[in-house]
Amino acid sequence: MALIVQKFGGSSVRDAERVMNVARIVTDTYKAGNDVVVVVSAQGDTTDDLIEKAAEINKNPAKREMDQLLTAGEQISISLLAMAIESLGFPVISLLGWQAGFNTNSVYGFARIKNIRTNRLQAELAKHNIVVVAGFQGLNRYDDLTTLGRGGSDTSAVAIAAALHADKCQIFTDVEGVYTADPRKVTSAQKLDEITYDEMLELATLGAQVLNNRSVEMAKKYSVELEVLSSLNPVPGTIVKEKIKMEKMLIRGVTKDTDVALITVIGLSDNPGVAFQIFSKLAQRNINVDIILQSVGRDGTKDLTFTVSQANGPKAVELVEELTVSEGTKITCETNVAKVSIVGAGMESHPGTASTMFEALYAQNINIKMISTSEIKISVIIDTEDADRAVSAVHNAFLPND
Amino acid sequence: MALIVQKFGGSSVRDAERVMNVARIVTDTYKAGNDVVVVVSAQGDTTDDLIEKAAEINKNPAKREMDQLLTAGEQISISLLAMAIESLGFPVISLLGWQAGFNTNSVYGFARIKNIRTNRLQAELAKHNIVVVAGFQGLNRYDDLTTLGRGGSDTSAVAIAAALHADKCQIFTDVEGVYTADPRKVTSAQKLDEITYDEMLELATLGAQVLNNRSVEMAKKYSVELEVLSSLNPVPGTIVKEKIKMEKMLIRGVTKDTDVALITVIGLSDNPGVAFQIFSKLAQRNINVDIILQSVGRDGTKDLTFTVSQANGPKAVELVEELTVSEGTKITCETNVAKVSIVGAGMESHPGTASTMFEALYAQNINIKMISTSEIKISVIIDTEDADRAVSAVHNAFLPND
Repeated sequence: MALIVQKFGGSSVRDAERVMNVARIVTDTYKAGNDVVVVVSAQGDTTDDLIEKAAEINKNPAKREMDQLLTAGEQISISLLAMAIESLGFPVISLLGWQAGFNTNSVYGFARIKNIRTNRLQAELAKHNIVVVAGFQGLNRYDDLTTLGRGGSDTSAVAIAAALHADKCQIFTDVEGVYTADPRKVTSAQKLDEITYDEMLELATLGAQVLNNRSVEMAKKYSVELEVLSSLNPVPGTIVKEKIKMEKMLIRGVTKDTDVALITVIGLSDNPGVAFQIFSKLAQRNINVDIILQSVGRDGTKDLTFTVSQANGPKAVELVEELTVSEGTKITCETNVAKVSIVGAGMESHPGTASTMFEALYAQNINIKMISTSEIKISVIIDTEDADRAVSAVHNAFLPND
Repeated sequence: MALIVQKFGGSSVRDAERVMNVARIVTDTYKAGNDVVVVVSAQGDTTDDLIEKAAEINKNPAKREMDQLLTAGEQISISLLAMAIESLGFPVISLLGWQAGFNTNSVYGFARIKNIRTNRLQAELAKHNIVVVAGFQGLNRYDDLTTLGRGGSDTSAVAIAAALHADKCQIFTDVEGVYTADPRKVTSAQKLDEITYDEMLELATLGAQVLNNRSVEMAKKYSVELEVLSSLNPVPGTIVKEKIKMEKMLIRGVTKDTDVALITVIGLSDNPGVAFQIFSKLAQRNINVDIILQSVGRDGTKDLTFTVSQANGPKAVELVEELTVSEGTKITCETNVAKVSIVGAGMESHPGTASTMFEALYAQNINIKMISTSEIKISVIIDTEDADRAVSAVHNAFLPND
């Protein structure tokens, strides 16, 4: 008998029909002889509706009260799912985050799980109950409710799987698994049978949006085997684990991220401290810098180029202006750029990977503004208007349509 | 400085505008130098909406899961009210039932409060916070959420007032206080300045529906001074307390209850055990019997007449049939009857009260089917179609229009 943790997102439980569908998946797993813990998010647009209700009353409410409000969302979905499972004739109990033992720190709206006291969870499993747990939420040491931030239910599911040493953590979504590219845009996109944690992390960071990144990091840390699969179509999904069997595929996916602001600083004095100052200030302000490029400019000056998210663009420009006010530099911020990346653990041992990618872009006449490489990924910054064409071209170069 | 508990029902917080209105009432009380604890129900139709959502999934869900579901309603209203109070610039914190220390027994859907651990409440008041508490809900010894049943928020408010020895418990509703009759039907109905707990209990039982009965019982037990007043119209309401100053008014109110089933058993053998058997069986099945009348029938038999709520009518008839199957009795159940009552502590010392009431009904040609009297109330059972006319006639006899 295995212990399986299953997680269903908001769209999977958005109405009575979908809730019954989830109940059937869960009870099928239970009927097959498994212990089952189910983690659910709030139904459909519940969270957004509650945020809207709050905004009508207070534009900037205390984060503690916001968490008190939002946690009602999963409270509704867990009890409804428990009722659905009960209606199919199976023993079931729903648990709120705090009832399931989720202890977090006190960063309201983006709390971190400190630990899970599993005694209640284990007692309910010992009674052969299917246990339905509210994702996204926990309790801090003041006995106040906290939330883990958007996508937090994935993290809740992985945390329970880690705490209970579950055999598998299944993340049900509205896609059938992890694809080599966005299947709505690239017709030759293929579903992956397996992928490593590291590759998944790169794909998640790059905007694939299948799995919340914190949950993948946690799964890697505690060796929780993840499976990404569809709640609507019962076919095998994609397994995420530490080591996967070698496949012919050199790369695991091509992704596109358009939330990029490209900041260029021209004419920086060649003083070693300047770049350091800029990036340490950006870090202090919680501005994540992605790709950095430094090059020699005219007359002994340096040029610095880096990318941040579009929301952070104006703040980053302002900061750089403050720091270089005496330098006479020229600062620009471009937002009509996109990052296209290929990810794959296999590329380490294949020196030709980068040139295959660049060649595919060159053949399409797509101009590369920046390049960044890591052991398992290559990213390029290009014009946004070229992005979809670039993804297709690169995908076809590595994973041609059969 | 006084400590005031204020309770607002669902219609008082049904939308953002009403929530802001409540926030103003609360903060005005706080500004006047009082400590304030506010108890709120779920917004408007939230509870009914949640019940409907559940019914779509499971017609007869576990009561524990129903309570898990419904308690989300007040969770939403308390956090929204806290945000509204915050937006007016006052220190505030919202507490769920369990955070406020409400311990109940485990009768899901109709739990009784066992005690309130007030340490959190007192700590928040010591920090000069306005404390917004979720009514209607508590926690049992298994760490599961419970609800107190419809109208439970009144009980929550009175329980907090009792536990904190509050100076006053204000129950805000959509009427301006307790009236001598339904003001929508009887134009001469007058608002009472004061009323005793006992009178209020009789009025509540008789269908006045201003205050939940359990809350009045609790207020009487712990000598909590109640005030019933309007959340929309800032005028003094009705004070409910143990002893009130004498007024000229002989009676405190005339009420009508149409949820009455009148059951008649004709031809019961004159065996002393029979009536006892019937009522003990009814009690075992949780059927509340209101008025009972026994009279001598033909040929040494007895006739028995009693009233129950309409929902219990068929079950009561069935029970009586089982018990009297060998007796050859005739059993009827009438539902087109109503109970009209007058309530007033003053009538004890005024023997003419009953005859004034009967005379008023006689003058209107209204036939009385049954009469029941207690120290502070007289009830008559009449045809439903006469009920409104009866209330007006009786009201005018005791409290004539000025």
